[in-house]
Amino acid sequence: MAKEDLLLLDFPLSPFCQRVKIALEEKGIAYKHQEENLFGGKSELLLKSNPIHQKVPVLLHDGKPICESTIIVQFIDETFPSPPLLPSSSYERSRARFWADFIDKKLFESGGSIWKAGGADELEAAKNEFFEVLKCVEGALSDKGYFGGDSFGFLDIIAIAMTNWFPAYEKFGNFKVEDKFPKLSAWIKRCSERISVAKSLADPQHVIGFVTQMRKMHGLE
Amino acid sequence: MAKEDLLLLDFPLSPFCQRVKIALEEKGIAYKHQEENLFGGKSELLLKSNPIHQKVPVLLHDGKPICESTIIVQFIDETFPSPPLLPSSSYERSRARFWADFIDKKLFESGGSIWKAGGADELEAAKNEFFEVLKCVEGALSDKGYFGGDSFGFLDIIAIAMTNWFPAYEKFGNFKVEDKFPKLSAWIKRCSERISVAKSLADPQHVIGFVTQMRKMHGLE
Repeated sequence: MAKEDLLLLDFPLSPFCQRVKIALEEKGIAYKHQEENLFGGKSELLLKSNPIHQKVPVLLHDGKPICESTIIVQFIDETFPSPPLLPSSSYERSRARFWADFIDKKLFESGGSIWKAGGADELEAAKNEFFEVLKCVEGALSDKGYFGGDSFGFLDIIAIAMTNWFPAYEKFGNFKVEDKFPKLSAWIKRCSERISVAKSLADPQHVIGFVTQMRKMHGLE
Repeated sequence: MAKEDLLLLDFPLSPFCQRVKIALEEKGIAYKHQEENLFGGKSELLLKSNPIHQKVPVLLHDGKPICESTIIVQFIDETFPSPPLLPSSSYERSRARFWADFIDKKLFESGGSIWKAGGADELEAAKNEFFEVLKCVEGALSDKGYFGGDSFGFLDIIAIAMTNWFPAYEKFGNFKVEDKFPKLSAWIKRCSERISVAKSLADPQHVIGFVTQMRKMHGLE
């Protein structure tokens, strides 16, 4: 792996941190990481590096901070061009950015509404919203196997990093993504076999454990 | 002006449409536009071109739709590279994208909370939130005169397109941006003298008229 001065301020279960890790693995770039204690007290470095949002991930490149996961993945792609992650045509890049933005705005939040639901009606509404989002995401998937066509790229990274939270949504929502979205599920399996993804995604059981703790904090368990 | 097959689905008072117009003017690219009736009935072309959000702006290039204003401005910059709008370094590009994202998430919404406020406490909270946002935005402004340094670029376009709504926020919030944010106000004046901006921004009095109508619809007038 190439040696670069890269430090990731990290929280391993965060889908957004996972995106950055997959991108760096795809590029074959070694990096250091520092785990943040999001509940106990964030590091001075995090607060200084991302004063606006005070959130992980932050990637420090030669000491300079880059924030927001989709922006970081684009930075990685532009700074270390080989192999390319974003499509080569400006139109296809705009399409990839559109869906990344859609996923950013909708997927994690609608999934979170499932495990935060307080009653049966709320849960039903949350599930329906999540299914609507997944329907759109599945619709954007190419028939060639990946979002951008026949090879794993930018939008696959953005989306796959959210999927190890799906088993938690399934458990607390009592459904199976695979039953409703077979094409998307086949894509998840395909991507999960990739080394960059397998190395970067936390164990779904750890996510379930974390979500169970969060439900206790919300008075739901 | 260069001739390209470009059609903008437009709503002239929309800050997001204004961004696209400024970018096209900066590039010296001629385009057609079609005004949408956002309240009466959106065109079939809009619904087909942006089925997910069903919102303007949409830019059709050779008939292919690009959606979401910051994505469209990046598309314009990548498709018509001269003169460049985004910075040349990947780090500076990530910084520009960070602030564009911040402005997208915070500025229009916090400004809208001012004219939607139902009572004195709500108005005070809305104003404080808006001032916090402006403080951050002003902090990102370079001492050289523009967001990216000494020349007008991507982030100036993203931000300046929101500012002809400020007089409406000032009117219904009873304050002056200039009193609190002199550096930002000087930047607004500087940008407003630019032909691309002057040609693209709707008259603030029209915005005030529109917002007054919206307040009537919300039962506030």
